[in-house]
Amino acid sequence: MDLFEAIKNRRSCRSFAADPVPSDAIEQLLEAAAWAPSPLNTQPWQFIVITDEAKKNEIFLEADRCRKWAIEESGWTWLKGYPLVFLKEAPVIIAVVGDPKKTGVDMFQEEGGVGYQLACAAAIQNLLLAAHALGLGTLWFTFFDKPHMREILNVPEGKTPVSLVCVGKASGELPSVPRKDAKAKTTYM
Amino acid sequence: MDLFEAIKNRRSCRSFAADPVPSDAIEQLLEAAAWAPSPLNTQPWQFIVITDEAKKNEIFLEADRCRKWAIEESGWTWLKGYPLVFLKEAPVIIAVVGDPKKTGVDMFQEEGGVGYQLACAAAIQNLLLAAHALGLGTLWFTFFDKPHMREILNVPEGKTPVSLVCVGKASGELPSVPRKDAKAKTTYM
Repeated sequence: MDLFEAIKNRRSCRSFAADPVPSDAIEQLLEAAAWAPSPLNTQPWQFIVITDEAKKNEIFLEADRCRKWAIEESGWTWLKGYPLVFLKEAPVIIAVVGDPKKTGVDMFQEEGGVGYQLACAAAIQNLLLAAHALGLGTLWFTFFDKPHMREILNVPEGKTPVSLVCVGKASGELPSVPRKDAKAKTTYM
Repeated sequence: MDLFEAIKNRRSCRSFAADPVPSDAIEQLLEAAAWAPSPLNTQPWQFIVITDEAKKNEIFLEADRCRKWAIEESGWTWLKGYPLVFLKEAPVIIAVVGDPKKTGVDMFQEEGGVGYQLACAAAIQNLLLAAHALGLGTLWFTFFDKPHMREILNVPEGKTPVSLVCVGKASGELPSVPRKDAKAKTTYM
């Protein structure tokens, strides 16, 4: 698939068919992810491929718990209607786990290093584009409590579960979500 | 260009030719960036396209100041040899500025929202891939003090300069940097 076509036509998918994702497709997605740039080429990512139904249910329950908590904190009642069932429905969830020690020179900055998270995000964007090119839908999901997700996924203390990506065949058409014109977001100097 | 080809053959560029980058190419890069996913489609990015020589020199001096400081903090003497001159040589630097208020539901999490930075990173990855497809080299640069860079770029208090991307025609071949096999970074559950 043409790069620009992939970039413009990729959409978030919140409803997945039950069809399993072939393991060679998963490997292609992870290979694409691993070609992302990273600070000092530290490649600060690790991937956990989750297909176990009980584990997906634990993830769903954690997200649902966070949603309830966020509604209380925010008063955003519309969150009650925000679907989370895709966490159970998606045949595969790929957790992207980052290593804060592999963050490059920004580790010495006062606010702490964020380079490893940016690199993981670049890897995820590669993964989303690759999935689209293979005819797969994805959802990039970050709404969970990191220490809880660490426990659920048996991630060691020093590593950070940065994001989850739901992967599977989309069930139905994906809605096209517009973007603001980049020109309106650009200044020159 | 094919998506997978773009993902696998993109390289970081640290030496730029002086040739200016056509404005329509810049617009294509920013359009690609703006198609990235973001939390609740908040599109938390803004772009500053910098071609002014004096401004690029200010950016260089800030990075050089941070390098000296990092050498003192870290003892990483190899940083003395790390080139920064690409900040002056690159015909264009694109600053990607994020809005921490557009970070989605993770704003209620204890450690603060990071979703806007992940979205900016996804936008940057789109930009790097698009540049490669257009025959342009890029360098993703994050080593600067955010409050100082805010001043240099006249960014308002509430916004965060997330990264700079140097853009231009590569001067010479780009070295191929290997990756660890994704399989070695993957577990299944």
